[in-house]
Amino acid sequence: MVVGLGPGPAEWMTPEASAAIEAASDIVGYGAYVERLVLRADQRAHASDNRVEMERARLALKLAAEGREVAVVSGGDPGVFAMAAAVLEALDASDDARWGAVELNIVPGVSAAMATAAQAGAPLGHDFCMLSLSDNLKPWSIIETRLRHAAQADLVMAFYNPISRARPWQLDKALDIVREYRAPATKVVLGRDIGRPGASLRSTALGELRSGDVDMRTMVILGSSTTRGFARGVQGEWVYTPRWYE
Amino acid sequence: MVVGLGPGPAEWMTPEASAAIEAASDIVGYGAYVERLVLRADQRAHASDNRVEMERARLALKLAAEGREVAVVSGGDPGVFAMAAAVLEALDASDDARWGAVELNIVPGVSAAMATAAQAGAPLGHDFCMLSLSDNLKPWSIIETRLRHAAQADLVMAFYNPISRARPWQLDKALDIVREYRAPATKVVLGRDIGRPGASLRSTALGELRSGDVDMRTMVILGSSTTRGFARGVQGEWVYTPRWYE
Repeated sequence: MVVGLGPGPAEWMTPEASAAIEAASDIVGYGAYVERLVLRADQRAHASDNRVEMERARLALKLAAEGREVAVVSGGDPGVFAMAAAVLEALDASDDARWGAVELNIVPGVSAAMATAAQAGAPLGHDFCMLSLSDNLKPWSIIETRLRHAAQADLVMAFYNPISRARPWQLDKALDIVREYRAPATKVVLGRDIGRPGASLRSTALGELRSGDVDMRTMVILGSSTTRGFARGVQGEWVYTPRWYE
Repeated sequence: MVVGLGPGPAEWMTPEASAAIEAASDIVGYGAYVERLVLRADQRAHASDNRVEMERARLALKLAAEGREVAVVSGGDPGVFAMAAAVLEALDASDDARWGAVELNIVPGVSAAMATAAQAGAPLGHDFCMLSLSDNLKPWSIIETRLRHAAQADLVMAFYNPISRARPWQLDKALDIVREYRAPATKVVLGRDIGRPGASLRSTALGELRSGDVDMRTMVILGSSTTRGFARGVQGEWVYTPRWYE
């Protein structure tokens, strides 16, 4: 099973995901996700580092082919910049019939972008895209092309992997590209660690946004030309993208 | 509360969504979603027709302002082409202080597109967009522009509201546009009623796809140039979009 744990709290984890963890003999995943789970003494945890998705996927398939009940865990939804694609890629590349005979199921979850959007209002309420700004696995030129077209399409954008120590300049460059097409007043939502301890949420404007406001645990949602905000009680604002277009 | 019920089955509904329904005195929503729920005798159901989202949103805010505990329900995630944006729009347009004082929470859910993707493999495994093909609330020209840019950006696309009796030609036109940029062999996933009785899933190619293969209950996921498939046991195929780009 490739299991989406949701963004963090038990209340955002589906019953199917909980049952999959319960039934697993082996839990395979990035350390931070495996550590979220309370496991029984008879369950084995195989926690690994970030950026070793393919090794993790192969380990999971090897264990499953040996007859173990394996749960590969991802935060959010496992199909969005996460482990489902890595497991399928490992399976696709293998000609081991035992791997091919593994019964594979993918258990969807609440995605980090949608959970962040729900806290902010409904910024993903109309046409949108989800883009990874990481150039670890794709050339930066592809990312630029996608940003230019997404900006011209007036799509709301959710950025995964917006910035990291190894990728310090990419977010500024991405924002420069978007600023060629979108007004400085364009709404931006920043959700950090949404669903986890110390979560924070704020909204700002594209013209005010600095890459220093964002770290690798921040979900950035950049509005379209129609995304708007209004006061939310005594402080903060609701941000939403209307369903209609003038 | 604006509550995402997920695509259908209880196993895809989060504990937070279940608790919100349990706590509600009034359930407001499109008939097909309200009917999914088993309500107590003391809970009032306010089921309405499709396409009356704004009336439904205003009814919910009116009831909440009167002190009722209201759950507005959406299938999938409430922030994706669903009720969260309508409720915020109704609140934004109102100057009734009682509406402004309503304590509003949005409860995210598993989206229909991500649940369909999980059944098919991981077609949304890399950069993608979600587009509504309905021109009820936006001009068709905007949809065309978005399709052209999304196609040139080589984004995977999930189509919401792909076709209906009132919108019979739009899907063919949308596919014609995408075919200008993508090869006939491009992978397409069609998931109908995923998570509900009689669910069906199949994959095909852009060159083979006909609008007659799709109805209003079908989620269409159209691959990028890198989306690929491979045999899945004795029949069918897994479809995924690799995390990397050559």
